[in-house]
Amino acid sequence: MKQETINSIRKFTEDREWDRFHTPENLAKSIVIEAAELLECFQWSDSDYDMQHVKEELADVIVYTQDFLDKLGLDADEIVNMKMDQNERKYPVEKAKGKADKYDRL
Amino acid sequence: MKQETINSIRKFTEDREWDRFHTPENLAKSIVIEAAELLECFQWSDSDYDMQHVKEELADVIVYTQDFLDKLGLDADEIVNMKMDQNERKYPVEKAKGKADKYDRL
Amino acid sequence: MKQETINSIRKFTEDREWDRFHTPENLAKSIVIEAAELLECFQWSDSDYDMQHVKEELADVIVYTQDFLDKLGLDADEIVNMKMDQNERKYPVEKAKGKADKYDRL
Amino acid sequence: MKQETINSIRKFTEDREWDRFHTPENLAKSIVIEAAELLECFQWSDSDYDMQHVKEELADVIVYTQDFLDKLGLDADEIVNMKMDQNERKYPVEKAKGKADKYDRL
Repeated sequence: MKQETINSIRKFTEDREWDRFHTPENLAKSIVIEAAELLECFQWSDSDYDMQHVKEELADVIVYTQDFLDKLGLDADEIVNMKMDQNERKYPVEKAKGKADKYDRL
Repeated sequence: MKQETINSIRKFTEDREWDRFHTPENLAKSIVIEAAELLECFQWSDSDYDMQHVKEELADVIVYTQDFLDKLGLDADEIVNMKMDQNERKYPVEKAKGKADKYDRL
Repeated sequence: MKQETINSIRKFTEDREWDRFHTPENLAKSIVIEAAELLECFQWSDSDYDMQHVKEELADVIVYTQDFLDKLGLDADEIVNMKMDQNERKYPVEKAKGKADKYDRL
Repeated sequence: MKQETINSIRKFTEDREWDRFHTPENLAKSIVIEAAELLECFQWSDSDYDMQHVKEELADVIVYTQDFLDKLGLDADEIVNMKMDQNERKYPVEKAKGKADKYDRL
């Protein structure tokens, strides 16, 4: 996201003095709650979904994820690159290509 | 995230030909599964958590969220700004300040 | 479930003195964590799943649900009957038959 | 639950011809969605929750769990007893007493 968007997420929380509610645990709960609302868009069908609703729920996931990063002082690029390095080792291209198996079954 | 990080997420999927598994529904399931693994870091305590584990699970949430954005051709800044505008209206500062109530109870 | 099975769930918790960890909030987290592990059995396919794994994860959901009922002194029959009455009103047969729509869209 | 309660859950689905939507995958999604709604009752506080709301969301979890058992022809007592035997071995009383650690850390 652009720095401007991240700033507007931060300002929203500050203006409402919601930082006090943003413990890491509460934000972890919030991410899973919003992720389940996103999943609800696909509860009974994988193809017939309401795009506007999907956008709103996905945005909620992203906002709480940013709040979580902020709360713990984490950098998205740093942790994603760290994890992608792990994933590269767990899912070597020659073994994982075209397969949805978990790494311990490859 | 930096464009470079986003590109490495995309390349990871392409190299493994995993796009075929990345339906919007499957990615929505994946986001909630990883979000629940993040929550597991806080299952029995809000203060005693393993930071390395937290980073890994949070990264998984971010990676699948990026995959979802890519799959539906969505722009994170656009949908977050749209949602933050809604949130501003649902949670006016003067009503929501310092309160964790849901908008329909303010 | 049979009373005997419920008793063995209770004894398991008592023997380990885990009641102290079983706050309603922690049990709510636990149910969602186990439910997401059940969903993981269907992450990439709706048909190709490991039945033994499904049974284990479903059992975990049921066990934590029983722990939650016990913690709050709730009766499964009572709350389910109360909710089914609500559902009957929200989803009248003549409107809901054969449709997966949410009640506010019927 | 009493057989009568289980029967009323089954009749509800039959009357609405909803069995067609009740694939194992859709029911697994449904359980996690309702479990997250239960968690939402504790999103910002572990002590200040709405008991009526808690009962309704917990009932939804129980109903979809019963639907899932029915769909796969599973017996709750059988799978819970199987899992409790596993748990007894994973969490021996002398090691697990009073500790919230995961079995691989005991």
